[in-house]
Amino acid sequence: MAKPKAKLKRKISKLKKKIKGLKAELNTQPALPTVSPLAPSAGFPTLPEIGGVTFAAGAAGVKYQGRDDVMLAQIAAGSAVAGVFTRSATRSGPVLDCQAKLAELQKTDTVADVMGVVVNSGNSNAFTGKTGDASVEFVSASAASVLKTKPQNILTSSTGVIGEPLPHDKIIAVLGDLSANLSPANAPIAAGAILTTDTFAKGSAHSVEIGGKPIQIAGFAKGSGMIAPDMATMLVYIFTDAAVTSSALQHMISAQNQTTFNAITVDSDTSTSDTLLAYATGAAGNAQITDPDSPEGQKLGAALHQVMRELAHLVVKDGEGATKFIEVAVTGASSDASAQTVALAIANSPLVKTAAAGEDPNWGRVVMAVGKSGEPADRDKISIHFGDILVAENGWVSPDYTEDAGVAYMKNQELKISTDLGIGTGTAQVWTCDLTHGYITINADYRS
Amino acid sequence: MAKPKAKLKRKISKLKKKIKGLKAELNTQPALPTVSPLAPSAGFPTLPEIGGVTFAAGAAGVKYQGRDDVMLAQIAAGSAVAGVFTRSATRSGPVLDCQAKLAELQKTDTVADVMGVVVNSGNSNAFTGKTGDASVEFVSASAASVLKTKPQNILTSSTGVIGEPLPHDKIIAVLGDLSANLSPANAPIAAGAILTTDTFAKGSAHSVEIGGKPIQIAGFAKGSGMIAPDMATMLVYIFTDAAVTSSALQHMISAQNQTTFNAITVDSDTSTSDTLLAYATGAAGNAQITDPDSPEGQKLGAALHQVMRELAHLVVKDGEGATKFIEVAVTGASSDASAQTVALAIANSPLVKTAAAGEDPNWGRVVMAVGKSGEPADRDKISIHFGDILVAENGWVSPDYTEDAGVAYMKNQELKISTDLGIGTGTAQVWTCDLTHGYITINADYRS
Repeated sequence: MAKPKAKLKRKISKLKKKIKGLKAELNTQPALPTVSPLAPSAGFPTLPEIGGVTFAAGAAGVKYQGRDDVMLAQIAAGSAVAGVFTRSATRSGPVLDCQAKLAELQKTDTVADVMGVVVNSGNSNAFTGKTGDASVEFVSASAASVLKTKPQNILTSSTGVIGEPLPHDKIIAVLGDLSANLSPANAPIAAGAILTTDTFAKGSAHSVEIGGKPIQIAGFAKGSGMIAPDMATMLVYIFTDAAVTSSALQHMISAQNQTTFNAITVDSDTSTSDTLLAYATGAAGNAQITDPDSPEGQKLGAALHQVMRELAHLVVKDGEGATKFIEVAVTGASSDASAQTVALAIANSPLVKTAAAGEDPNWGRVVMAVGKSGEPADRDKISIHFGDILVAENGWVSPDYTEDAGVAYMKNQELKISTDLGIGTGTAQVWTCDLTHGYITINADYRS
Repeated sequence: MAKPKAKLKRKISKLKKKIKGLKAELNTQPALPTVSPLAPSAGFPTLPEIGGVTFAAGAAGVKYQGRDDVMLAQIAAGSAVAGVFTRSATRSGPVLDCQAKLAELQKTDTVADVMGVVVNSGNSNAFTGKTGDASVEFVSASAASVLKTKPQNILTSSTGVIGEPLPHDKIIAVLGDLSANLSPANAPIAAGAILTTDTFAKGSAHSVEIGGKPIQIAGFAKGSGMIAPDMATMLVYIFTDAAVTSSALQHMISAQNQTTFNAITVDSDTSTSDTLLAYATGAAGNAQITDPDSPEGQKLGAALHQVMRELAHLVVKDGEGATKFIEVAVTGASSDASAQTVALAIANSPLVKTAAAGEDPNWGRVVMAVGKSGEPADRDKISIHFGDILVAENGWVSPDYTEDAGVAYMKNQELKISTDLGIGTGTAQVWTCDLTHGYITINADYRS
């Protein structure tokens, strides 16, 4: 005979209160972020030194105490530069400043002067009005001074809480020390300084031979944070010693961005600060690449793609509350753009993402997401695979599908959901994570 | 001195296991849905009888045991009919059948024959292929037989799990009994039979005088369910004794739908089964309304709007896991359509919805959602109110705003978030609920 329901509920409520008390006690202790279960077991990769690029990081106390929160990068004179940014209509002051400066820097094949990048974590300087714009100017001027270059050669990013004035004086105070400690070996500490409440630092490297010269590419990124009242913010920095013009580099990263960072989603919400910057120093000594479509250009583009895709996947793997990494593939759509819309409808569906969290092979929710996408589809031509398992076809569950097989598959940490619409040749691939209690805890249970 | 962190964590983990065990025990007991905290305290309203409309409900055992799961409505000969349906590309067999029949039924001002509606809960007959289409035909033929009319006058809806064959024989088996028990007073039991795991039945009524005749409107709806591996599915049935042509009625409900049911969102996922049907019997004796834009047509449209908006709000108030009812108003947009897109971006943002759940006056997330909507906006012209509190303006937090005032406001059960874009005259109003652990529990912790 089961216990009376009311009694059980009272007991649960009592235990919950106890947990709440213990958690409160836990929170009074120094924050020690647990690492995402999807973090690479090998840890942060060994990044190659990139000729012409040096890094430093330090603790300015912008918001966090006892950890690095500012990074400075110096890029040698004669380098190329490219960037992609959030398309948000409410993008932050630093993003607007980067876009304006980049337009000038890209007017020549490479930039004659030394360039610099300053990134702070803890404060995003977003929606801070004209005051925020002034902070960007102060930091740029100070960094230009220590790097002995012009302010228009300094690009800045800020990530963290929004709507609070950036304490630019704290950042400026450490720039002199940082410039004295610049080293090509400091990429790992730079990658650490830009994190907010990410659970691990995200790095990637790739090498390729072009025109007989070995070319190195190294990059790092930050993703969605935890336990902070701010938005998921993505920052990415990529450095290569390839010789390439700014316009060719811009063409490559804009194109590769579509299938890497623009193909990931954690919660469908778009940051006001998303920034990707790429620098190419030419130190490898290859003949300068001017045409992205030349054999050499395509080779470099493919190598950049490797680094960008790995970093994009790492951002998803540190998605707030993530316990599953999910690849969503769509084929047979009326066009690639249509496939992308359908894939994002599936990847952003709260019902698909909670089903993944619950290890529920709920293919009906995939059908629902296809239907709501607004793209051309025909119920009776859709087929759905979970991994290699054919789940649904001809408008209904596959006769060979068993619920046991579906349940067993969903226990995997990495999942692939493939949908063939059966009406064309359009394809797309996007990556996301599941939607868990962890996401709610991070974003609802915390009070700013 | 705080206890060691590892020890606290072990203790929490132990208590969590205990809760899990107690919850499992709880789940073995009969499901007794708790009622949404947002349910109307007055309970189900008294619905007026509508001349020419009778209802019956019964237990067919489609999926649930011990409760009504089929409703039958009969509408007198000479009535008008209108409907709006999901725009999903993967809509269910019953929806496709309704749309095809409605096109025929609306070819005359009113329908000469008796009409009927059959709705079952427990199985949505969605993504069930040709077998599902045949089930619709069997149910329509059987209902036509007991109501002594033609199958093309019978509209059906199904709601519940998807991808499972509809046991149409069980439904057909009870239709004879239901037809013997049809009564104008049975609307409340009909409203109960269409629920899946809604936590309360949703009804609304309104009366209006047109041409000296009192006109009654009564409607009921079902919304997003709980603890079922299916999609949120919305069904709405509205009945009036007004004399109006089908085309005028269709015009009215299509127009009103834009600002009522099309202006609510629980989780941005669109059902394959959403259906709204409206019948007008003419029993009130008013001069038949043929023009929706005539004074009489506008009066009836406004009265229909009252009922549709109340039902739409009730659907949100029974949203999965909802603890807050949120009105999102956007003004000053470049157009009404743009305002609607911005309002839905705010209402569908997981970060805005989790902030509401956490009673966090996180206006930065509202700015973020405006930015990601893709609609025209200017950071420095946006102003945001929480209730009557001016939170942000001129691209930054308002100088008069205090966090204390924001925190106090967010404790309300009904919230209003108003955003003025300051660039035009477009306006929109949408309604949503918060995103809570309850939503995750309902959709992730349950295994089908």
